[in-house]
Amino acid sequence: MALRGPVSCLLRTLLSRSQKQQIRAQSVAVLGAPFSRGQKRRGVEHGPKVIRDAGLIERLSGLDYSVHDFGDLNFPHIEKDEPYMEVKFPRNVGAANKILSGAVSRAIGAGHTFVMLGGDHSLAIGSVSGHAQQCPDLCLVWVDAHADINTPVISPSGNLHGQPVAFMLKELQSKMPSLPGFSWMKPFLSSRDLVYIGLRDVDPGEHHILKDLGIQYFTMRDIDRLGIQRVMEATLDHLLARKQRPIHLSFDIDAFDPSLAPATGTPVNGGLTYREGIYITEEIHNTGLLSAMDLVEVNPMLGANPEAVEATASLAVDVIASSLGQTREGAHGSNMEIPSAKDDTEQLCL
Amino acid sequence: MALRGPVSCLLRTLLSRSQKQQIRAQSVAVLGAPFSRGQKRRGVEHGPKVIRDAGLIERLSGLDYSVHDFGDLNFPHIEKDEPYMEVKFPRNVGAANKILSGAVSRAIGAGHTFVMLGGDHSLAIGSVSGHAQQCPDLCLVWVDAHADINTPVISPSGNLHGQPVAFMLKELQSKMPSLPGFSWMKPFLSSRDLVYIGLRDVDPGEHHILKDLGIQYFTMRDIDRLGIQRVMEATLDHLLARKQRPIHLSFDIDAFDPSLAPATGTPVNGGLTYREGIYITEEIHNTGLLSAMDLVEVNPMLGANPEAVEATASLAVDVIASSLGQTREGAHGSNMEIPSAKDDTEQLCL
Amino acid sequence: MALRGPVSCLLRTLLSRSQKQQIRAQSVAVLGAPFSRGQKRRGVEHGPKVIRDAGLIERLSGLDYSVHDFGDLNFPHIEKDEPYMEVKFPRNVGAANKILSGAVSRAIGAGHTFVMLGGDHSLAIGSVSGHAQQCPDLCLVWVDAHADINTPVISPSGNLHGQPVAFMLKELQSKMPSLPGFSWMKPFLSSRDLVYIGLRDVDPGEHHILKDLGIQYFTMRDIDRLGIQRVMEATLDHLLARKQRPIHLSFDIDAFDPSLAPATGTPVNGGLTYREGIYITEEIHNTGLLSAMDLVEVNPMLGANPEAVEATASLAVDVIASSLGQTREGAHGSNMEIPSAKDDTEQLCL
Repeated sequence: MALRGPVSCLLRTLLSRSQKQQIRAQSVAVLGAPFSRGQKRRGVEHGPKVIRDAGLIERLSGLDYSVHDFGDLNFPHIEKDEPYMEVKFPRNVGAANKILSGAVSRAIGAGHTFVMLGGDHSLAIGSVSGHAQQCPDLCLVWVDAHADINTPVISPSGNLHGQPVAFMLKELQSKMPSLPGFSWMKPFLSSRDLVYIGLRDVDPGEHHILKDLGIQYFTMRDIDRLGIQRVMEATLDHLLARKQRPIHLSFDIDAFDPSLAPATGTPVNGGLTYREGIYITEEIHNTGLLSAMDLVEVNPMLGANPEAVEATASLAVDVIASSLGQTREGAHGSNMEIPSAKDDTEQLCL
Repeated sequence: MALRGPVSCLLRTLLSRSQKQQIRAQSVAVLGAPFSRGQKRRGVEHGPKVIRDAGLIERLSGLDYSVHDFGDLNFPHIEKDEPYMEVKFPRNVGAANKILSGAVSRAIGAGHTFVMLGGDHSLAIGSVSGHAQQCPDLCLVWVDAHADINTPVISPSGNLHGQPVAFMLKELQSKMPSLPGFSWMKPFLSSRDLVYIGLRDVDPGEHHILKDLGIQYFTMRDIDRLGIQRVMEATLDHLLARKQRPIHLSFDIDAFDPSLAPATGTPVNGGLTYREGIYITEEIHNTGLLSAMDLVEVNPMLGANPEAVEATASLAVDVIASSLGQTREGAHGSNMEIPSAKDDTEQLCL
Repeated sequence: MALRGPVSCLLRTLLSRSQKQQIRAQSVAVLGAPFSRGQKRRGVEHGPKVIRDAGLIERLSGLDYSVHDFGDLNFPHIEKDEPYMEVKFPRNVGAANKILSGAVSRAIGAGHTFVMLGGDHSLAIGSVSGHAQQCPDLCLVWVDAHADINTPVISPSGNLHGQPVAFMLKELQSKMPSLPGFSWMKPFLSSRDLVYIGLRDVDPGEHHILKDLGIQYFTMRDIDRLGIQRVMEATLDHLLARKQRPIHLSFDIDAFDPSLAPATGTPVNGGLTYREGIYITEEIHNTGLLSAMDLVEVNPMLGANPEAVEATASLAVDVIASSLGQTREGAHGSNMEIPSAKDDTEQLCL
């Protein structure tokens, strides 16, 4: 595995665009992470189920992938899990992420493009770290209303789904206490290898960190100013101009406007439009470098009615499918022919 | 009639902008086409009624047109109409379009600006061909979520509302079988005289044709990239830069986002905003060259509730009114004066 | 007071940006104007209550202002108030605005940044004129679906909420009859000191005035063409390039799309998005020159349901808070430190 992993990462970056297209067409691994202890609202552990019910697997299969649905991870429930400082459920979050990390590492090592269905956003700790075990030079695109970069010490809420990025960044190591449950991991990401898109609710301490570390981020105001096209250009330029490398896309459904994604725990007005969200993922796909992605924070217990839940889950499916190559422009095989009209009916040759 | 038609087309293109404004102010013909056999969902034949009920005629009259409402066409029902290849209801669709084609030709020949209320989008075959009889050098702007350019042989559904453009294009003649019901018509349009706006659900065969013929099209992704202003600039430049000529606007209400136009048969997420749709039509109007338009696929039986139907029909009225000169900026007569204040009340002189 | 007023205006324009930030942080005065006689629909007099109930005061306090809520003005009811020409309730509107004007002048003279909660938009007569008593060189940004610049003589409806700007402009003085109730005021604003944003329903007489006086205005079409970023650049350039001076922002909630602000009296389709509205106010705030603002035409009796009213009122709170410094990017104190991780829990030092 240790050998295959880096090879699969390497392939992705060394091959030509059309070669990449062929590679990517091979296989996608889908893994559910029914976990909600990174925040306080029950229900987000049912995210994987509703996203699958909205037709994810069929949709990805329709894109000519061989789709491997590995089902849902089984997380232990650690009974005794007192807050550490103000941080809630550190042992449960730590243990779940350790398990997830291993699973992601194995799936990527086996050559799959990886899709994690959350669950809350604390799961990104395991997902991105597992990815980084195989592809140490990955870069991270974080699409979210929130920066999720509070350290345990400054977190206003103590919920770990508002802190995952702080666990990843090498530059924050001195600011991170030794939380019970997290001894298995070390920070692995440089702050310059991360770009945020969609921020609009940033805590004071988070703002300080973003500025202090010079992290590249695009708030909704920036999208209003620049337009999503220039935001994506700048994002990909920032991450890929120096070198081609695997992308991890961590997509929180609350990046979208609450009118589109109502069934989520911490909605904030003024989010991405449907088209902006799809544009982001189309651009990510077009790099040919997407190696793993998370889709998190779909909470079916928070929709006002079944339609709200269905809309949110269906949006999640669109985001994942678009990240993996579904296009609005359409597509056709390179050897397609439009049959001439002869009255003996011919079938379309693909 | 044969003489008057071309003269009316010629006038439109030869006159100066202000002269055109005067011409256009003369008369609009409205014609309903209550027809639904180009697709499988009943109800779209009631489109003309709900669009009129939403106040179309009053709105156009308020724009200082002399509005001639010619009521609804009467289409024969052809009982025996087996599928030809996979194509459904070819004889009914062919016969309805033949009738429509004649009516459009007469109305345009008589000097009216023409508005067709659908009905499904298969009716564009008759509408555009009737227009072309009078104005052979017309160009076509097709605003739609779909390209509607499947040939009968490649159509995945066999519904003719997904195929009208294939009937029009000279370049596709060799690909078109001789469908029963269509012997009255010949292809009349070059692929370079057509521009699509709003595409986001394109079949593989359609994608092949678009690319193969080099048709100019703007998907929703293109609108996201370029903005609607540059899309319209490119559209009008493509069609009119070589010469001024009559425009046919064929507007499928499903070009709009389903949140705005829910009462339609094949909605696709991520459509035009209200403002983008109105901007398109304002720009078309501002050319002074709009000669005929279709507004199709409003289906009052598909709204979830009366409000959804009303919103869709009202949107259709806005699209038509804006195409014909309703502005968001406002307007005033050239000889208007704001009366001075004297305590003997004067009336505003227009 | 006469001395303090101009000093407070002067300070705002002479100080550096960071000095202004400190000044602005001192105090905001909030005043309700429960008045509805400028139009015909009852209910808009409850606007101040629902905006406060949506959490305005708490939100502004959270921005580190000292917030002074002066409660609601008490307007006399003048029983005998026959229409003058076609103008309805001139004596009631005149008297209310006289009272409001004095209150605004006192509040601004006392050094507060002033927030008026309407009530209908006729109240801008009093609000802006009171502001101008203290800051004669103010400029006015009018965010609205309507131009509200009909003179009493040309007003199609006779409602004074469609006429306030006509009362302000020096250039229209000869067109203004002597309305009963308005002898206390004189026009005080030059047409070049005014910019409109968001227009999309402009009466013919209003269009004539806008063109005739060369008033700078941006319709929704202009926003579609230019984007909100360039519109704000042009707005601020027009008003502030010659000199720094106090801004009066008069914000009609109907500038927003009716889907966002349904509870209002004269909604017009195709309005501002949430993000555009917030962008406008962020840019106004960033000048450091906002001296007074109106938020008008929230009518809780016109929402289809409680959610519609709540959404409209909550939007009003967001507009006011964003005008006064709430940001989407986040912010942190200049002396903030992220504490290092030591297992003896430290608190965040602000």
